[in-house]
Order: sequence, then structure tokens, then C-alpha cells
Amino acid sequence: MCYATPQDAEDAYYDALEAGDASAMIAVWESSDEIVCLLPMTPLALGPAVARLWHSILQPGAGFEIQVRHLRWIECGDLAIHLVEECPVGQPDGQRLPAIHATNIFRRGPDGWRLMLHQNSPTPPPAPGVPSRARSLMA
Amino acid sequence: MCYATPQDAEDAYYDALEAGDASAMIAVWESSDEIVCLLPMTPLALGPAVARLWHSILQPGAGFEIQVRHLRWIECGDLAIHLVEECPVGQPDGQRLPAIHATNIFRRGPDGWRLMLHQNSPTPPPAPGVPSRARSLMA
Repeated sequence: MCYATPQDAEDAYYDALEAGDASAMIAVWESSDEIVCLLPMTPLALGPAVARLWHSILQPGAGFEIQVRHLRWIECGDLAIHLVEECPVGQPDGQRLPAIHATNIFRRGPDGWRLMLHQNSPTPPPAPGVPSRARSLMA
Repeated sequence: MCYATPQDAEDAYYDALEAGDASAMIAVWESSDEIVCLLPMTPLALGPAVARLWHSILQPGAGFEIQVRHLRWIECGDLAIHLVEECPVGQPDGQRLPAIHATNIFRRGPDGWRLMLHQNSPTPPPAPGVPSRARSLMA
């Protein structure tokens, strides 16, 4: 698989997450010791631990459907940085989970763009009387 | 102030944090709408909101002393990405707070290197019987 743009790699990341496809997920990542994955309240995974982490999380039919909204999109040479808001959807009980912010960093190598860093930050609970969206997007 | 290297800018960031010096902190950041700051359990700050956030947090004599350990250090053209472990020190009651992971992204501009993204991720609580350091550095 060769991702021609950072967005192609990012689409493949969220598709693999939704499908619960660990192999597709791992194909999105750069094959190097430098990769970093920080999922919410999950121990840091570096290098080869990233593949082990995804194998432990993803199973076919038990994926995570996430709506993604881009907040920042910075490309500079062979690096691309996307700041996104991840909104989990399709909860069995119809519950709407809070959005989570994530930074995705992609690097261009000989075989196209690959993910090299994914970092989540949980969203704080909303202040009383303040809609959570207004708080999370203050700028 | 002109930071000749990403490390110079990073040192200035943690020095400003320790001193509680909002002006010094803001000088570390790129002056642009693209900057991103995600502190632990704090609403996302983008662009000019980053300066307002630091003004609301930092006061002289009430800074945060943090020991920093580099886990990854990636430089690519005009961008530099540092993954660090931040360990708060000097708590009044001698309590040792858990380390927090952070990604710092610096960009080189006409006046040297500036911080453009700071993102924290809280560390999960240690599993029973597993030292937290072993968990946080699994790789």
C-alpha cells in the first residue's frame, strides 16, 4: 500500500479503526523505531510496541467508528501535522461520547506517506452552563 | 529573542513555566494563528487563545518546575518534534506526581525556532503490581 498524500494515510487509519482491522492499521504506520502512539489513558507505545498495541485492541467486527473534523492542517516538506477532533459515533445505547483531540503526524518516505505519531488528549468535562463545544473550540 | 535551535526554544519554555513568566512563555511561541496548546484536562487553545491561556495560568513565584526527559527527537527540515516525559518536582508536601507525556513541535521561521504545538497526555494509573515507569515506557 502506498499512500500518495497524508490525507490518504489518515483516511486509512480511521477506516482500519472502524473495521477493527489490525493489519490494515499497522500498514498505515511507518516501519521504524521512531513511531509514537498515545491513546487515551493507555500506556505510551513506541516503535514495535505500536503494532502490539493495535493487535491487542482491534478485532474484526469490534472497531471504533469516529467522525473526524480537522482543526489545523500544517504541511512542511516531508512532514504533515493534522490536529483533529475525534467524535465517537454509533454507541449501542445512542449515548454521545465527548470529542477527543488528536494530533496525527505523517512523514513522507520512499513508499509514500505514513503515520509516525498519533497522540490523543481527553477533553475536559464541560463547565456548568457552558456547552462543551464552545469550551473545546475557544480560540 | 532568537532561538538558534529547537532545544533552545524548549529550554526557554520550561524555564518560563518554572518562573511563572507569562511574557517569556509567550515569546517562545510562534506568532501565528496555527499554534496549538493542549494542556492536561484544559480546553484546547488555538492561535491567540494560547497567549490568553498562559496569562491566566502563569504568575511570578507560582510556576511549575518540571524535569524533562526526551523519548524521541525527530528533526526534518524546518520542523522538529520532541516527545518528552514531564515529571513535576518540588511539590510542597514532597509528593511525587505522575509523569505526563508531551509532544513539542517547533518550526523554524525568519527569527529562529519557535514552539508551534504543545500537547500533553495524562499518564494512566499504574496497573496493580506493575511499576508505573515500566508501564509508561513499554516499547
